Amino acid sequence: MRIRAYAAVEPGHPLRPFEYEVGELGANEVEIDVKHCGICYSDLSMWKNDWGMTQFPFVPGHEVVGTIGAVGSSVKHLKPGQSVGLGWFSRSCMECRQCMQGDHNLCAGAEGTIVGRFGGFAEKVRADKNWVIPLPDSANISTAGPLMCGGATVFTPIVESGIQAGDRAGVIGVGGLGHMALRFLRAWGCEVYAFSTSPEKEDDSLHLGAHRFVNTKQQGAIESLAGSFDLILVTVNADLPWDAYIAALKPRGTLHVVGALGSITASVFPLIVGQKSISASPVASPAVTAQMLEFAALHQIGPIVERFSLSDANDAFTHLEAGDARYRIILDNDIP
Amino acid sequence: MRIRAYAAVEPGHPLRPFEYEVGELGANEVEIDVKHCGICYSDLSMWKNDWGMTQFPFVPGHEVVGTIGAVGSSVKHLKPGQSVGLGWFSRSCMECRQCMQGDHNLCAGAEGTIVGRFGGFAEKVRADKNWVIPLPDSANISTAGPLMCGGATVFTPIVESGIQAGDRAGVIGVGGLGHMALRFLRAWGCEVYAFSTSPEKEDDSLHLGAHRFVNTKQQGAIESLAGSFDLILVTVNADLPWDAYIAALKPRGTLHVVGALGSITASVFPLIVGQKSISASPVASPAVTAQMLEFAALHQIGPIVERFSLSDANDAFTHLEAGDARYRIILDNDIP
Repeated sequence: MRIRAYAAVEPGHPLRPFEYEVGELGANEVEIDVKHCGICYSDLSMWKNDWGMTQFPFVPGHEVVGTIGAVGSSVKHLKPGQSVGLGWFSRSCMECRQCMQGDHNLCAGAEGTIVGRFGGFAEKVRADKNWVIPLPDSANISTAGPLMCGGATVFTPIVESGIQAGDRAGVIGVGGLGHMALRFLRAWGCEVYAFSTSPEKEDDSLHLGAHRFVNTKQQGAIESLAGSFDLILVTVNADLPWDAYIAALKPRGTLHVVGALGSITASVFPLIVGQKSISASPVASPAVTAQMLEFAALHQIGPIVERFSLSDANDAFTHLEAGDARYRIILDNDIP
Repeated sequence: MRIRAYAAVEPGHPLRPFEYEVGELGANEVEIDVKHCGICYSDLSMWKNDWGMTQFPFVPGHEVVGTIGAVGSSVKHLKPGQSVGLGWFSRSCMECRQCMQGDHNLCAGAEGTIVGRFGGFAEKVRADKNWVIPLPDSANISTAGPLMCGGATVFTPIVESGIQAGDRAGVIGVGGLGHMALRFLRAWGCEVYAFSTSPEKEDDSLHLGAHRFVNTKQQGAIESLAGSFDLILVTVNADLPWDAYIAALKPRGTLHVVGALGSITASVFPLIVGQKSISASPVASPAVTAQMLEFAALHQIGPIVERFSLSDANDAFTHLEAGDARYRIILDNDIP
């Protein structure tokens, strides 16, 4: 069987129609008929081979929502026709300590959906059954795609940090990740602050659930909040005034980083005297992804999206790269 | 009443006999008859006014062990004659959120025993009742002093990190703090590694409970342990190969810093993909100090000490400053 997709043949080259051959579906595999696919900034980075690990022809797409077309012979808990999502990973070893303790996302052998595999800018995509997550009945299928990578990534520290309703949480960056974090934290019952260098995002931030917007370009804006946050989530890839944000934490507070790639330099003494910590996490485990989808369905949380047809994926990439996406892009599959 | 002590009148000047006047004991105060007083490196730093907050005349000493001489009118749970210890703090506000949730050590108004107060290089020292910790009956009074600051400081992350018996823990630095951490972690049931730049400390490290000694001056020594530690405790004040130690952590592992003053620079990507964290903590709370003393008594854990008379405190300072202390110095009170 051949699968129709969109691929770039070299770094940064336009995506063109592309077909690839697949064999029989593996016993533990699931084949998803793609309905919608979100675009994550990492699709752009992989397309340009920024991380030196892209294989070409390259089919992007790892925020997939669709219905199951077929399941392998060992798949018992999923059925054809069921609505499902697929995120950054498509497979993990299922044998290592991390997989066996539920941290499949920390498996050293985990395979990215677009790393050495063909992704979701396609009519179909295949993945291991354990990474194909059923959508709750009340999920909004047309906007769930970005929850599968970006949404689950910001949800993980909310679940795992121990932050509770009534605690004060900050989100640095109101973008593809940050805008979902604001919604999750508001629904979690927290007092939510949005930190951004873009004052024009204030209205959106408040609409998304922030109780307060902090324009970090204003002198002393961060400093004036010293000692007041239980958790601050870093959703931007930028060099930040780390010590100022650490000072903004309460005693025992945590600065948690997702989606950044540089380095952090922090003074040790304020960490010590406030018993503070710096933590980080990658994309979510399957279990946390499922929990996130249930939480999102319960509170009707989804991303704010702009829509393109899959056949216009190049325009969507251009729009994202220009920094114009508000706040997440979804491609609707129009492969006939 | 006058209290006889040893004080320096200016930064770095020799300690000389000194007397100071005290009034009536406060309702919530306890007066300790000092028997022994450990020396912590922070006594040296304060003596030299390295942190710009020393008041002169300066009486060092915040690892006090003795018996209660008198208690204030509101003190019900402590009695004259009882054996007690006193550490870095002598008082906290008892009203703020931190005090009310048991984190008195994180109280913004906490008063250091030697910061604006006269410390334990004296015949007597006074402190708030909540910071005077009873010693268990089976405690070794002659060596318990250094447990009150250094011991409690390294015990806090053991209690609070969630590390369990069977987990692998590393201790960076085999010195005043580190050598007690090795003993605590061994008694906690962990697999214990000592990291040191001093190969001559290998025998002591193994004797103290380390299962393995790592000479960090050997090329690749840290790197060869990648992915294997649940917790690594930093007990030295030095610029370390942070990324190498973070790489040595297992997924979800923690690098925990006590007693350092510089800054940490760490690459973010390894923290993210391994869901790792960097944390820190100061001296212990009263409750954790009491728990530490019980644990130390149960397992007969104490520091390895060298002894000086209080009247030879200047020699002891010289010995400590030269880096020659193995591993903690205790002054025995010889004020007649």
